[in-house]
Amino acid sequence: MSDLLGVAVLGAGHMGADHVRRIGGTVGGARVVAVADPDSERAEAAVAGRAGVSVHREAQDALRAPGVEAVLVASPEAAHEEALLAACARGLPILCEKPLTPDSASALRVVGAEARLGRRLIQVGFMRRYDAEYAALKALLDSRDLGRPLLLHCRHRNVSSPAHFTSSMLISSSVSHEIDATRWLLGQEITAVTVMRPAPSAGAPEGLLDPQLVLFETSGGAVVDVEIFVNSGFGYEVRCEAVCERGSAQIGDAHTMVVRTPGRAYEDVAQDYLVRFADAYDREVRAWVAAARRGRATGPSAWDGYAAAAVAEAGVAALRTGARVCVEMAERPALYG
Amino acid sequence: MSDLLGVAVLGAGHMGADHVRRIGGTVGGARVVAVADPDSERAEAAVAGRAGVSVHREAQDALRAPGVEAVLVASPEAAHEEALLAACARGLPILCEKPLTPDSASALRVVGAEARLGRRLIQVGFMRRYDAEYAALKALLDSRDLGRPLLLHCRHRNVSSPAHFTSSMLISSSVSHEIDATRWLLGQEITAVTVMRPAPSAGAPEGLLDPQLVLFETSGGAVVDVEIFVNSGFGYEVRCEAVCERGSAQIGDAHTMVVRTPGRAYEDVAQDYLVRFADAYDREVRAWVAAARRGRATGPSAWDGYAAAAVAEAGVAALRTGARVCVEMAERPALYG
Amino acid sequence: MSDLLGVAVLGAGHMGADHVRRIGGTVGGARVVAVADPDSERAEAAVAGRAGVSVHREAQDALRAPGVEAVLVASPEAAHEEALLAACARGLPILCEKPLTPDSASALRVVGAEARLGRRLIQVGFMRRYDAEYAALKALLDSRDLGRPLLLHCRHRNVSSPAHFTSSMLISSSVSHEIDATRWLLGQEITAVTVMRPAPSAGAPEGLLDPQLVLFETSGGAVVDVEIFVNSGFGYEVRCEAVCERGSAQIGDAHTMVVRTPGRAYEDVAQDYLVRFADAYDREVRAWVAAARRGRATGPSAWDGYAAAAVAEAGVAALRTGARVCVEMAERPALYG
Amino acid sequence: MSDLLGVAVLGAGHMGADHVRRIGGTVGGARVVAVADPDSERAEAAVAGRAGVSVHREAQDALRAPGVEAVLVASPEAAHEEALLAACARGLPILCEKPLTPDSASALRVVGAEARLGRRLIQVGFMRRYDAEYAALKALLDSRDLGRPLLLHCRHRNVSSPAHFTSSMLISSSVSHEIDATRWLLGQEITAVTVMRPAPSAGAPEGLLDPQLVLFETSGGAVVDVEIFVNSGFGYEVRCEAVCERGSAQIGDAHTMVVRTPGRAYEDVAQDYLVRFADAYDREVRAWVAAARRGRATGPSAWDGYAAAAVAEAGVAALRTGARVCVEMAERPALYG
Repeated sequence: MSDLLGVAVLGAGHMGADHVRRIGGTVGGARVVAVADPDSERAEAAVAGRAGVSVHREAQDALRAPGVEAVLVASPEAAHEEALLAACARGLPILCEKPLTPDSASALRVVGAEARLGRRLIQVGFMRRYDAEYAALKALLDSRDLGRPLLLHCRHRNVSSPAHFTSSMLISSSVSHEIDATRWLLGQEITAVTVMRPAPSAGAPEGLLDPQLVLFETSGGAVVDVEIFVNSGFGYEVRCEAVCERGSAQIGDAHTMVVRTPGRAYEDVAQDYLVRFADAYDREVRAWVAAARRGRATGPSAWDGYAAAAVAEAGVAALRTGARVCVEMAERPALYG
Repeated sequence: MSDLLGVAVLGAGHMGADHVRRIGGTVGGARVVAVADPDSERAEAAVAGRAGVSVHREAQDALRAPGVEAVLVASPEAAHEEALLAACARGLPILCEKPLTPDSASALRVVGAEARLGRRLIQVGFMRRYDAEYAALKALLDSRDLGRPLLLHCRHRNVSSPAHFTSSMLISSSVSHEIDATRWLLGQEITAVTVMRPAPSAGAPEGLLDPQLVLFETSGGAVVDVEIFVNSGFGYEVRCEAVCERGSAQIGDAHTMVVRTPGRAYEDVAQDYLVRFADAYDREVRAWVAAARRGRATGPSAWDGYAAAAVAEAGVAALRTGARVCVEMAERPALYG
Repeated sequence: MSDLLGVAVLGAGHMGADHVRRIGGTVGGARVVAVADPDSERAEAAVAGRAGVSVHREAQDALRAPGVEAVLVASPEAAHEEALLAACARGLPILCEKPLTPDSASALRVVGAEARLGRRLIQVGFMRRYDAEYAALKALLDSRDLGRPLLLHCRHRNVSSPAHFTSSMLISSSVSHEIDATRWLLGQEITAVTVMRPAPSAGAPEGLLDPQLVLFETSGGAVVDVEIFVNSGFGYEVRCEAVCERGSAQIGDAHTMVVRTPGRAYEDVAQDYLVRFADAYDREVRAWVAAARRGRATGPSAWDGYAAAAVAEAGVAALRTGARVCVEMAERPALYG
Repeated sequence: MSDLLGVAVLGAGHMGADHVRRIGGTVGGARVVAVADPDSERAEAAVAGRAGVSVHREAQDALRAPGVEAVLVASPEAAHEEALLAACARGLPILCEKPLTPDSASALRVVGAEARLGRRLIQVGFMRRYDAEYAALKALLDSRDLGRPLLLHCRHRNVSSPAHFTSSMLISSSVSHEIDATRWLLGQEITAVTVMRPAPSAGAPEGLLDPQLVLFETSGGAVVDVEIFVNSGFGYEVRCEAVCERGSAQIGDAHTMVVRTPGRAYEDVAQDYLVRFADAYDREVRAWVAAARRGRATGPSAWDGYAAAAVAEAGVAALRTGARVCVEMAERPALYG
């Protein structure tokens, strides 16, 4: 293989363009050789005149472009299944932005295709696993120094939500990060979901149930509460406190420059997830490039993508009914054992 | 009236002895003139040879002792109702440690007696209202600078629980502070309670459901989650974050001396509520003395004591059944309007 | 002796009036029986119609008033020496606001008078010794857990200075607290002083050398830097970091309620020393009352008052000359051994 | 020019090997084509079997290797001058680890050579300018929102010093970072240096004057104090507080995961500068690669390297003599205007 991994990037929107910039910028060992987007102008803008990158309208064409050795899927979620199956068929390592696919049924089809292949090619973009603070928390919990985890208290706040956001998307799109983080940090499955709905904030668009308090029960008996508030107005904040039998550990209050002005000492609050998690995205893509150059996939698997979808569907049902909803999951293929 | 308010202290246990020490120590304007406790030795120890204090076995005798102008009730909760009714009958201002009485029915009888008197004599010992941080949070919420409160996240942790503690007491004895704090901070009633039960900590006594996650819904549409963990092992911690429409405010992370040692920067964690809330107890008793010298009662009322009991009973039912339980409350007398 | 220590308060200005309010308010065990101030209206205002308090124009008259068992000196520093000598002559325990007297020569005369008496009657108002954070730092340093202290970094900031403040007073009036704190925390004498003078802040009155960086060398080889900035504009802040052989400890960054608003997380900064050190003042007066009721004096001694004056004089000389100035001290009487 | 900038790395020690790893790892847009080190084994180990990298004993040979378009100088400081002059002669952009050269005289020769060329080729490795917190502080100071800077309080602590470290090297090697940071943050020259010497820590090697308190005066009237403590034992810490006319700003207290254990809440303290400043090193090399691909140099200049040497020499004299030493500097060539 060549010196640098040749990557096709599918989708040139916000995330896709950021990944194009990242590969060759903060991430070495790879270069973008093809970009696909139905909007050619957007694709050209992402490439920005870089030499040796072909631009395509169709994802399938990008997959077949010369020099493509791996695929980064950043297209709309409706297009994921087809792209994943095609890339799997060509044996290409894949980094797929979350969600894996729009629902658990389609996710399960992707899992099945990869399981039939008999080796992992897919890494799902749950990038919190690559955040330094989350990694420190995971290491501490795994060490059992604080005993068994009993509770996780999670906060997930955005400044404001995009125009198309629905009440269900607070769970399926935003809380999906906490779903994966819960499963990963605890090494347990989520077995039931309840959603409590405060009177919506006046700062949220009419009709949007924002904020919500989402409650998980896990296979190991832990309870998790997640505040999701996508129109908090004040900042992008992701915090997590793990309460264990002999202590607790808290991340996400990271602070930097403290300014003292008359009567107040303040710190800036991050406004955007690309700022808060910039390093995590870099580390995620670096880990993927390193594995892909050996023809492998590591990190969050297609099964993790499926599990997140199954829990999110239970969550959306809990939101709609106001009741506690149990999570039903398929049998886990041996590949993900 | 004399220069110093003459106080009878009923009960010479942990709290009672602490109040005896407080009056004449950190609190001026009052002096203890009588102490009652069935255990005479304990009462004598609390008085510690102070001149001019009479010691009694019976609360009724202490109330009739010369110089008694006000009553501080720190006896076991089973004895509260009788003491409160007797003190009311004598027109004496009362500071009654929480809970007002053991259940909502008896609390309602006390409320009725005071309401018939037509003036407030009873202040209930919800001393968090006198904590500087809680007071700052209350002032901020009342200012509406951050908009309407949507969520309260509360943490309430003890190092370990006394031997007689039951799973219900996590709610009725410990969370009762958060019940009052919620009602006071939000100026709303609690309308429903749900309790989630993680697998108990190995650090808790066999059979004790510890920790619990208690969820309140309020009349104004706010949702409140309370972690109660009475065998946390690591410290006494009371934290509260109010999430509002345009910002959030968090108390209880107060830190003081930061020590840097090889590889670690640390701060001490308070181990006892008498340390964390020492100033609040002082301020509470000072406020009570000031009002009592004018023959009045301010602060948390008997009605607040009743309301806390009613919510706690719903909470205990929710704990037992696993279901969401609505709170039923009597009609509020005009005196507490 | 009576139940409550009878106190004469000399001076009814800001500090004097605060102490009158404190005794009988947050401090039990004592009551004010006499107040002296040349400005009778001010004295009457401080007393606020309290029964049984005589008001005087002359300090000497207050000392002779019936019921006076102890003296709190809060008059202008020029009046201290005469009041101290008179109170000593009457054998009255004294709490004297700092500075002990206006200069080291007069301070030494007071020391001599007390030394001839052969017992301590005077406590000087270096109230930081009673601050909980300073006390924790002192205990940690004394434990030698972190090894020998090598450096102290001190910050002392006021919002703005009173109209009459001079460049010398930054040292003699403000840094005098750090002089005592250094001697007390380290248990060492200050042997030399150097003062560095940044270009003055535009926020300081014309001609005032503000801020200054004051440097101490101590008998045990430690070096201390003190930022004194009395027109900082932003708050009242007192911080201290002790750097030791095996770690460091830092106080004065205490934080309480954290508020998150768009783009910023902030905390309030105290604006006034009576807020920051309110508890320390209470504890100081409580300790003094407790000792005075036994006819004794504890805490900072007249000798400490003298030493502070001697160091401050060296500091003022260092400020004036720009040179390093050695501190000359008299021999310490056995009483203060 | 080729797609990736071809870099020769001179020196394969700790820093050199780290840069080899960085280029092609966290930094894209460049690749290492040649490495030089007298110790061939060390050079080979740094390259780690990477294809297309030539290994040399002599720096001159590496500069002439095919594909070399830029030079990263990480050899011992005694070898810098020759390498810099040779690279300049070949017109190659250079990133030179600090110090530029071992003394101000040799630094001035390098400055002269670059000035005669008439364009900047040299960037000096003062990587703090690329740290996110320092950059935020610089932006805030430049905005003048807080007014003019009056004081900088700097702390610079290492766990322990290498065996060859001398008392002078605390200034010339360690404080050189604060020298550059002071000049850059304030946009002012350092005009005088004083060094205070506490009794050395028992944790420092026999004879090493550690810690020291280094004091700078600047051309704009600011005063800077720097604690340098290279055997602090507890961690690697770099902190800076800028005190301005209308507020202060403090960096370097960044915290991440807070763990609560019995009686203590703690955070880890970084032990190594490659951890604390990992991102700054990445950003530094990225900025250099970006400029070098356009044939330019940005960031800290050879003149900055010279100025740091001149101030450090004054500092070493101040340490030796105990006196205040003025800084003498050559005239600044127009190229660095």
